[in-house]
Amino acid sequence: MEMRPLDALNKARGKRVIIDLKNQRQYVGTLSAFDIHINIVLEEAEERQDGEVKKKLGTVFIRGDTITIISTQ
Amino acid sequence: MEMRPLDALNKARGKRVIIDLKNQRQYVGTLSAFDIHINIVLEEAEERQDGEVKKKLGTVFIRGDTITIISTQ
Amino acid sequence: MEMRPLDALNKARGKRVIIDLKNQRQYVGTLSAFDIHINIVLEEAEERQDGEVKKKLGTVFIRGDTITIISTQ
Amino acid sequence: MEMRPLDALNKARGKRVIIDLKNQRQYVGTLSAFDIHINIVLEEAEERQDGEVKKKLGTVFIRGDTITIISTQ
Amino acid sequence: MEMRPLDALNKARGKRVIIDLKNQRQYVGTLSAFDIHINIVLEEAEERQDGEVKKKLGTVFIRGDTITIISTQ
Amino acid sequence: MEMRPLDALNKARGKRVIIDLKNQRQYVGTLSAFDIHINIVLEEAEERQDGEVKKKLGTVFIRGDTITIISTQ
Amino acid sequence: MEMRPLDALNKARGKRVIIDLKNQRQYVGTLSAFDIHINIVLEEAEERQDGEVKKKLGTVFIRGDTITIISTQ
Repeated sequence: MEMRPLDALNKARGKRVIIDLKNQRQYVGTLSAFDIHINIVLEEAEERQDGEVKKKLGTVFIRGDTITIISTQ
Repeated sequence: MEMRPLDALNKARGKRVIIDLKNQRQYVGTLSAFDIHINIVLEEAEERQDGEVKKKLGTVFIRGDTITIISTQ
Repeated sequence: MEMRPLDALNKARGKRVIIDLKNQRQYVGTLSAFDIHINIVLEEAEERQDGEVKKKLGTVFIRGDTITIISTQ
Repeated sequence: MEMRPLDALNKARGKRVIIDLKNQRQYVGTLSAFDIHINIVLEEAEERQDGEVKKKLGTVFIRGDTITIISTQ
Repeated sequence: MEMRPLDALNKARGKRVIIDLKNQRQYVGTLSAFDIHINIVLEEAEERQDGEVKKKLGTVFIRGDTITIISTQ
Repeated sequence: MEMRPLDALNKARGKRVIIDLKNQRQYVGTLSAFDIHINIVLEEAEERQDGEVKKKLGTVFIRGDTITIISTQ
Repeated sequence: MEMRPLDALNKARGKRVIIDLKNQRQYVGTLSAFDIHINIVLEEAEERQDGEVKKKLGTVFIRGDTITIISTQ
């Protein structure tokens, strides 16, 4: 069966992912949950700017419609 | 069963959360209600700017589509 | 049963509320109606700017998708 | 039964209303039709700027998602 | 029965209409088709700027979500 | 039966069309496919700027919600 | 049977594609998955700027509503 985009997210569960938002912010954390709207929950998350950690955040809920790109480290 | 994003919000009920909006505003308050659109109700809410309390607000209804990030303190 | 965001709006019926829009405008009035899209009707409404009354408006229909925050006075 | 927002629009049928759009334009006219998307038809409409009539328009169809506020004169 | 907004568009079929878009462009043409999304087809269309014809276009399909106002000449 | 907007697109299949996007880009190509979201596939497409060919592209998939206008040459 | 836009994406599976986003970024990679929202997964992806590789990314999930154009190399 052909792979669907949510299958790729499912394989990233428990791994560190980098999420870029429409407002230029970037969050890095362990992917613990997602849904069909691409709402995301990251654990041990941090906000980054130009590759530097800007803020430690713990658990973060990210609304799907604000996301552009999700990549694995 | 795998955790979904709304489960994470559910665990944050009754706790202090920080909500960042698309228009750069930030609200902090006790999460008392949410729905599938991520509409949120905060109690004892305050608007913050650069980490400082800007305004005390009481109960606040936040429309889901204006939210980018929800984190716990 | 757990409270949902629309329950909070329901409790605000007949009370003065402050509504912030995405375009930075602010309306204050008595909440007389709302629906699941968060379309809102205010009675005895006024437009405010920096806490000052800018315009008296009577009954106002506000389209839900233009709203960011609804708070009680 | 509690009033819903569309009931308020229904009561405004045949009356002069002022409609503010997201792009800052303002239209005034007699409300002759609306639907659940808040698409609106005005008769004897005019575009206004700073309270002055800028253009006479006759019948105007306004797409709902461009509207922020509808008020009665 | 009360008139709905699409009834007004239906009455404009075969007539010259002026369509304003969110990106400030204006198209004038004979309304030949529309649907519930307010997607529109104009025949013998022209793009106008400040009341002047800028470009002759023939048949034009306009995506509904880009439209703000449709008026008759 | 009255013509609907998608009928107009259907008549343009196999013909050269000009597509204007919300981000001001313009694509010209042979219309080979479309759907109800107005997602479009062009063959032998080129990106144009001010009437000049900027880039030759081959087959291009254009997401519907980025389109403003589709016209025939 | 007439081709639909998703059929064109299906033919591009396993091939290198170029994806332009609304925020002006460009990603190049091997198309491994897509869905009806045009959510996309690229393998061996890279972010490009002015035709130059800016960053190597591995597997990338791109949210559909941020995409404007998908073309094949």
